[in-house]
Amino acid sequence: MLSDENTIFIGRKTVMDYVLACVTQLNSGVDEIVLKARGRSISRAVDVAEVLRSRFMKDLKVKDIKIGTEQIQAAEGGTANVSAIEITLSK
Amino acid sequence: MLSDENTIFIGRKTVMDYVLACVTQLNSGVDEIVLKARGRSISRAVDVAEVLRSRFMKDLKVKDIKIGTEQIQAAEGGTANVSAIEITLSK
Repeated sequence: MLSDENTIFIGRKTVMDYVLACVTQLNSGVDEIVLKARGRSISRAVDVAEVLRSRFMKDLKVKDIKIGTEQIQAAEGGTANVSAIEITLSK
Repeated sequence: MLSDENTIFIGRKTVMDYVLACVTQLNSGVDEIVLKARGRSISRAVDVAEVLRSRFMKDLKVKDIKIGTEQIQAAEGGTANVSAIEITLSK
């Protein structure tokens, strides 16, 4: 089981910000990281994984990809469903 | 190997448009479909898979998810890299 330390939450920063966060994490002795994203950030999570693998850490493998649905608190109250992705990358 | 008939390309239409296309395809006797998307449409492809599975075809399984990078012709000439996803859904 992976600890939260190995999880990178992909939000609204640039792809390169997250790529650098991943490189830092992987160079700190961790063998595996999990990219998590929801909604529109899902595309960015795939970008981060692809840029990381093609340009920075060519030995990195896509170990697993999961998709799912999460409930979030809507601004107007109540809940809304949002799609989510988890990409596990492994050395 | 899957024929192109079983492939749904996710672009800029609404999620529901693609969900209906998938339901139609799966009700025509096909056991498996592949959702393909690039760039920002990747998030929509995950939405389509999740809405389809949670609301319309609850026995549908995510059989495989692949991510990759494709080259596209840039408007200014030359090529640009774009992330891509393929989600295989199976009855």
